[in-house]
Amino acid sequence: MPRYRSRMPRIVVGVMGPGETATAAECESAERLGELIARRGWVVLTGGRSAGVMDAALAGAKRAGGLTIGILPHETDASASTFADIRIVTGMGEARDVVNILSSHIVVVCGMSPGTAAEIALAIKKGRHIILLDPPRATADFWTGLGGPLVHAAATLEDAVDLAARLLEPPG
Amino acid sequence: MPRYRSRMPRIVVGVMGPGETATAAECESAERLGELIARRGWVVLTGGRSAGVMDAALAGAKRAGGLTIGILPHETDASASTFADIRIVTGMGEARDVVNILSSHIVVVCGMSPGTAAEIALAIKKGRHIILLDPPRATADFWTGLGGPLVHAAATLEDAVDLAARLLEPPG
Amino acid sequence: MPRYRSRMPRIVVGVMGPGETATAAECESAERLGELIARRGWVVLTGGRSAGVMDAALAGAKRAGGLTIGILPHETDASASTFADIRIVTGMGEARDVVNILSSHIVVVCGMSPGTAAEIALAIKKGRHIILLDPPRATADFWTGLGGPLVHAAATLEDAVDLAARLLEPPG
Amino acid sequence: MPRYRSRMPRIVVGVMGPGETATAAECESAERLGELIARRGWVVLTGGRSAGVMDAALAGAKRAGGLTIGILPHETDASASTFADIRIVTGMGEARDVVNILSSHIVVVCGMSPGTAAEIALAIKKGRHIILLDPPRATADFWTGLGGPLVHAAATLEDAVDLAARLLEPPG
Repeated sequence: MPRYRSRMPRIVVGVMGPGETATAAECESAERLGELIARRGWVVLTGGRSAGVMDAALAGAKRAGGLTIGILPHETDASASTFADIRIVTGMGEARDVVNILSSHIVVVCGMSPGTAAEIALAIKKGRHIILLDPPRATADFWTGLGGPLVHAAATLEDAVDLAARLLEPPG
Repeated sequence: MPRYRSRMPRIVVGVMGPGETATAAECESAERLGELIARRGWVVLTGGRSAGVMDAALAGAKRAGGLTIGILPHETDASASTFADIRIVTGMGEARDVVNILSSHIVVVCGMSPGTAAEIALAIKKGRHIILLDPPRATADFWTGLGGPLVHAAATLEDAVDLAARLLEPPG
Repeated sequence: MPRYRSRMPRIVVGVMGPGETATAAECESAERLGELIARRGWVVLTGGRSAGVMDAALAGAKRAGGLTIGILPHETDASASTFADIRIVTGMGEARDVVNILSSHIVVVCGMSPGTAAEIALAIKKGRHIILLDPPRATADFWTGLGGPLVHAAATLEDAVDLAARLLEPPG
Repeated sequence: MPRYRSRMPRIVVGVMGPGETATAAECESAERLGELIARRGWVVLTGGRSAGVMDAALAGAKRAGGLTIGILPHETDASASTFADIRIVTGMGEARDVVNILSSHIVVVCGMSPGTAAEIALAIKKGRHIILLDPPRATADFWTGLGGPLVHAAATLEDAVDLAARLLEPPG
């Protein structure tokens, strides 16, 4: 009986950033970022709630026809973004941040919050590359001090996605 | 700026059963089950490792062109089934069973093991319908005693999938 | 600089059973069980909420002057039993059942519920001995079928604690 | 039947810092810190492994006769500090950091690492006061920027414990 392998696994890019406290500019960036990621054929993964950067990045990815995953903290999907195709319901509160990071091949960060900081720290611990979008100097310095060559800054959304591509697909 | 909603969320059917201790017959059933589920347009979700029912159900779903999700217990995807399109890496050991259940709209069970029993118990606690494939009488009785109307038995794979369809899409 | 080792680690006995659905008889057994366990010098660990077997076992242990631990599912200790000395706050919902089992050297079960069944199944998977208090025949048969020599039944509370002592401290 | 309440719950102080990468000075501080915390009658809680700040803080607390808790990431206690009286075995990898924070009434930080940064960020998110021991200016600024009045710095170990006392027991 012939079997057909999954062609990949799919490349998953995590987009992390503030929820309710996200600024309009951060949401706009996240939405455009989700779109650019989806156009590359990558899956967009976020914390999955209908708020801030999580929601915006998924919305952008759907606009570009991408596949989207939301990793939810609660026991139901009542808080889920309407743009999440796949809703992973963890019921584990903040511990779901670990799932966000471990399930992402690379992490792009749009804005800052305590939850976002926890995710960056976990990404460093687990060896994921992290791309900070246009970070303030002190923020970039702090994380680079902790994560060294895993921590990157990108001045524009396009630069961030190009950098992700290079980090994900090193030239043979 | 127009936004496009995710048409659904996707319907996710969890297939649970033994890993390394699965029998050849259980794996064969799981593979055919994955195929039937995928043909309905549903996503197949399993514990994601390259073993037993987890692996077989994902293989069957891929043969039918379906989308597959593996929820992995370890911190890397080294143990993942090659048939898992999306690999959710939890790093949480047995606690990932909770994610399996909460992320599934309905659960189909193929065989029995301690891990499978934990998942059935969690499914009952969280109000998910569970379909046991051709269970021994004592097994069916035990779970029905705990879960009442949430616990169902199906004599054939086709019956199981038809029953899942009725439970997922109650007639208007 | 001299250092002083912890004399042990302390022996931890998990007591598992229904919460809100526990019967008065189950709570009475759990309270007496907690007392007997504490008198042996063992720590009593439960799911920690102020309900059913969890609460009663901790209450009994405190009456005997024992040390008590509650492993709570929520993000705060608002639901905690007043008899829990140490409140481990997991914020992980049902996933805390895994912590209950992994942190217990042996598990005593008083009554049955979906959550209790999940804990027994996890205990079997993780190689913990389980003592069922006066279980119905079908229940004992089901779990013995899954767990073999890890699953024990005890007719009385005193028998359960004596059996725990033998299983915890095998004769040299 | 009279029941006896737990006199409290016990006050739990989390001590967080690097594991294998801790410096000798950080371990010395952590050991002395554990001692000072235990002398106040508080329980010392750490990540529980036999390494760095985790181990040293528990050792110090035991020297002062205190009660100690280790929250372990692995599925067994093989990696546990010999100074941990109570070994909470989570099997959840990095997700145990959430348990560390939620189970601590206040957090004292001795040194910095990716895991420590994740714990500080979680503590801010969950509203715990955090006392950084003699932090570099840039570190203090970064965390204060995220956590505002929850983030404190202490120049000496004695100051840290005095501050903890004031934060834990506000004057009536």
